[in-house]
Amino acid sequence: MSFQEQACIAELYKPEADSGTEYLRDANDDIFWLLYGSVLVFNMQAGFALLEAGQVRIKNRSNMLLKNVVDVCMGGVVWYLFGYAFAFGLSSNGFIGGSWDVLSGCADYSKWMFQWTFATTSATIVSGAVAERCSFSAYLFMTFLMQGFLYPVVVHWVWSGYGWLGKDIIGGNGLMDFAGSGVVHLTGGTCALVGAVVVGPRAGRFSPDSLWPMRGNSVAFATLGTMTLWFSWYGFNCVSTGSYSAMYEASRVAMATTMSACGGGLAGLVLNLAHTGAPDILQALNGILGGLVAVTAGAPYYEPYVALAGGSSSTARGCSRPSRSTTPSTRLPSTWPAASGASSRSACSPPRPTWTTPSTLVPSTAAARSSSASRCSGPLPLRCGQP
Amino acid sequence: MSFQEQACIAELYKPEADSGTEYLRDANDDIFWLLYGSVLVFNMQAGFALLEAGQVRIKNRSNMLLKNVVDVCMGGVVWYLFGYAFAFGLSSNGFIGGSWDVLSGCADYSKWMFQWTFATTSATIVSGAVAERCSFSAYLFMTFLMQGFLYPVVVHWVWSGYGWLGKDIIGGNGLMDFAGSGVVHLTGGTCALVGAVVVGPRAGRFSPDSLWPMRGNSVAFATLGTMTLWFSWYGFNCVSTGSYSAMYEASRVAMATTMSACGGGLAGLVLNLAHTGAPDILQALNGILGGLVAVTAGAPYYEPYVALAGGSSSTARGCSRPSRSTTPSTRLPSTWPAASGASSRSACSPPRPTWTTPSTLVPSTAAARSSSASRCSGPLPLRCGQP
Amino acid sequence: MSFQEQACIAELYKPEADSGTEYLRDANDDIFWLLYGSVLVFNMQAGFALLEAGQVRIKNRSNMLLKNVVDVCMGGVVWYLFGYAFAFGLSSNGFIGGSWDVLSGCADYSKWMFQWTFATTSATIVSGAVAERCSFSAYLFMTFLMQGFLYPVVVHWVWSGYGWLGKDIIGGNGLMDFAGSGVVHLTGGTCALVGAVVVGPRAGRFSPDSLWPMRGNSVAFATLGTMTLWFSWYGFNCVSTGSYSAMYEASRVAMATTMSACGGGLAGLVLNLAHTGAPDILQALNGILGGLVAVTAGAPYYEPYVALAGGSSSTARGCSRPSRSTTPSTRLPSTWPAASGASSRSACSPPRPTWTTPSTLVPSTAAARSSSASRCSGPLPLRCGQP
Repeated sequence: MSFQEQACIAELYKPEADSGTEYLRDANDDIFWLLYGSVLVFNMQAGFALLEAGQVRIKNRSNMLLKNVVDVCMGGVVWYLFGYAFAFGLSSNGFIGGSWDVLSGCADYSKWMFQWTFATTSATIVSGAVAERCSFSAYLFMTFLMQGFLYPVVVHWVWSGYGWLGKDIIGGNGLMDFAGSGVVHLTGGTCALVGAVVVGPRAGRFSPDSLWPMRGNSVAFATLGTMTLWFSWYGFNCVSTGSYSAMYEASRVAMATTMSACGGGLAGLVLNLAHTGAPDILQALNGILGGLVAVTAGAPYYEPYVALAGGSSSTARGCSRPSRSTTPSTRLPSTWPAASGASSRSACSPPRPTWTTPSTLVPSTAAARSSSASRCSGPLPLRCGQP
Repeated sequence: MSFQEQACIAELYKPEADSGTEYLRDANDDIFWLLYGSVLVFNMQAGFALLEAGQVRIKNRSNMLLKNVVDVCMGGVVWYLFGYAFAFGLSSNGFIGGSWDVLSGCADYSKWMFQWTFATTSATIVSGAVAERCSFSAYLFMTFLMQGFLYPVVVHWVWSGYGWLGKDIIGGNGLMDFAGSGVVHLTGGTCALVGAVVVGPRAGRFSPDSLWPMRGNSVAFATLGTMTLWFSWYGFNCVSTGSYSAMYEASRVAMATTMSACGGGLAGLVLNLAHTGAPDILQALNGILGGLVAVTAGAPYYEPYVALAGGSSSTARGCSRPSRSTTPSTRLPSTWPAASGASSRSACSPPRPTWTTPSTLVPSTAAARSSSASRCSGPLPLRCGQP
Repeated sequence: MSFQEQACIAELYKPEADSGTEYLRDANDDIFWLLYGSVLVFNMQAGFALLEAGQVRIKNRSNMLLKNVVDVCMGGVVWYLFGYAFAFGLSSNGFIGGSWDVLSGCADYSKWMFQWTFATTSATIVSGAVAERCSFSAYLFMTFLMQGFLYPVVVHWVWSGYGWLGKDIIGGNGLMDFAGSGVVHLTGGTCALVGAVVVGPRAGRFSPDSLWPMRGNSVAFATLGTMTLWFSWYGFNCVSTGSYSAMYEASRVAMATTMSACGGGLAGLVLNLAHTGAPDILQALNGILGGLVAVTAGAPYYEPYVALAGGSSSTARGCSRPSRSTTPSTRLPSTWPAASGASSRSACSPPRPTWTTPSTLVPSTAAARSSSASRCSGPLPLRCGQP
């Protein structure tokens, strides 16, 4: 290790309690941990691309893939040029960062990497919501806006240490969001909803005489995409502990993540089976994703049985929705399914199509919304917020 | 790290020789190592799903994928509710664990994760064996039984430290199985064989006038699935060392795994080439899987050339089988190929189909059977059994 | 850890400055780091297989997959039997290693693993260049020669510590190649070019009346392959630091890799868009790969903006080529596109085909050629060459 590197590590990782050079070892562990997470979370982009490419009609597959690739490439450039500075730069207003110092000198490259993969994930969520009915240039503008401004601002509020919502500001009792149910998924989901309202449903998607399901073109890609997302989600959640020394906490997070995904998948499958009499893998996949999103905010605070119940109910909640939106006078229900983009059928939809069909992902985002505000009330007094 | 976390780590990872708090560092390393392995082995589920989805007929692809997704989701729930307790809970009988204490208080979450991925793998093996001819409800029952009872019981025998077969019981000379050639693959393979016998071959699969090969629908999925399995197998084998401090052993395991897979793949390709005159990628894939299964039990004890020979012969052994089963009076040979589910042609089958066609996977499971009983006779006096 | 293992680690990882047994901890970290990288880089094989399988015509897909599988399997055996000894064995001539000692006794298994995945990558590059027009036996011979002799010899020159080109020989100022832009990609690319010249273009590929593009069969596979390669490239580049203690350098490498890939992808997309008016995902994918190759040699020496510029220009440089090869008298330009195998259209090609169409990958290999000779002139005085 060169002298300059040592100096950088000493600057970035203050040797608080450590004496001597033992903190160098800890610093290497922490950097590795973030890199490990970054690589895994980066892989979510492949997962999203496959999931969405498999669920659109074959004619739109290339387009869907292109949008996901653009998210990543443009996202990296935008996040480097100003997104990261907006998110983590020093600010006195608590609204948006205004300093590029975070990327000069001894920059914390691993933090940049990890946060970049989160930013890209947030933008990718929108691509599914406007699938098959958004022009390429409009999409370019949206993803630019999302990764360059909207998402960084929300990150600044919660995770920067300077934001008006963060716990560092509001007397230690501010909003805590462990791995981004709110910051990533709710922000992405809200933009997705707005996008879906703007572009409207696909032509013929909800007309009574349409060939209803507009099924995707490849259940194999959809399944592989979901499994890839689940695989990568362990990086998303576990590595959000931020420190290698909190590895026991990370293992607890891994188990909670597993239980919630399993619960969501089973609930999706069983609820749909109860309604339609035939198992539908897409409902299991939707349920898995719902469970994964729902557990993200509070992963280290849940006992396994809580995560199991939460994941299951994130899917189940989707089933109580239709009764509340039986009047066709509002446009929203018909666009909500679109908000989840790829997930074109509900876990509890009847076998015959109706336009009130809700989607699994929206309720689970709603679940995330409530859980993202949860305080550190778990059994373990763990560190909150994302480092 | 919170005080409670420290207390849990101190309880789980006894500071034997260490003085001070140095064991905290070792504990973090060990927990990370198991988490790293868990994430990799979890990815095997995607590999199995792709491999099997690619090898069945197109009409059964969704069904095949569904079964694999259900394995994972139901597996997680069942393993949490009682599988893990049956496997690792305290017992005085040596047959099955009977205590849920292992999941309360300071639970070893990373161990649960790693073992869960193994349990799910064991169950997934069966899905290939009954491919295309098993009702969904029967499959649900099977996977429930497998992950909730059959597999945990075998784990308890060998890896729990209380089992009648484990080395901790039989004077230090009990059965040793490094990473589960016996516990995972033989258990899974036996259930697969039973399942295949019960459901019988596919209609027309072995009738003389059938369009023989019943080839799969996507060699690309099959190849990607196999490569994904190989990729994940490094987690399966290397991390079975159980301790970060045994990393040199893990690197040895990685090389043995590589040599065996390469040997198996080449042998499958060459033997088939010698018989048919045309290269067949499916035989290479079968050979790779055979090599991977064969090396699992003894990976840390093999010199690279031994692993190379073992992997090659695991495929080659499949070729000496047909001569022993030339009489069509027994039903078994016709179901054995089915036992390997997706692998529909043998490495050494003649170009014309016969009903005695053996499969590669069954012999390699047989190879695993013998090697799983191998004692610690390798060049290095390494720790045996799985922690 | 057994006594013998400890002895091996002590032999391999000399306890230089460390006193006591602290070096055991460092050794475990370093071995893990190489294993982690090996597993990731191994996954590149799946990426190459998918990318190439998706870009050839459907009739050649199985064949393409087979070649990639054979690369891995034969590569492992050949690399074990003599490739590794040729590359890293002791030599007095500086041209080729001549000692098998490196694989006996206390062998450095993790180094073997990591280098094997690089060797296989080098050979795989050729498979794309001769796609759809090379007999299987010829390909077998080529991959045998490549992994058994050609690639090991080049490795010996640069990375062995005994080679005539390495910095250890030429007074500390020899060739440095951080992660193999030269050693891996230029060697592979040169063999690919030779192969492409020998076999010539595909029949009808460049005839004026042909149905021009000879497009691939699955843009989804091509995209998944590229994303898989990008994912795995983090192992390729970051782990080339060789030591866990240089983790800060690795994080810098990760960010440079990201910026170069993003820049390449965006440039490919935008340049093509400017010429044709329609976005083409294949150009984005080509650009990503070009960016990844271009950054490999100097990843730890580039500031992020340099990597961004380099990645973008590696794609852009491909666009200035056609003007230099406007005379159809030379055969080379028509084979260069083939040299990049799967990349069948240029980022800046006009919508109508011409035989001067250049490919992105070749220029980026050229870019790699120049950057692979770059000296340690980066802002940080980091260790050069690959350990």
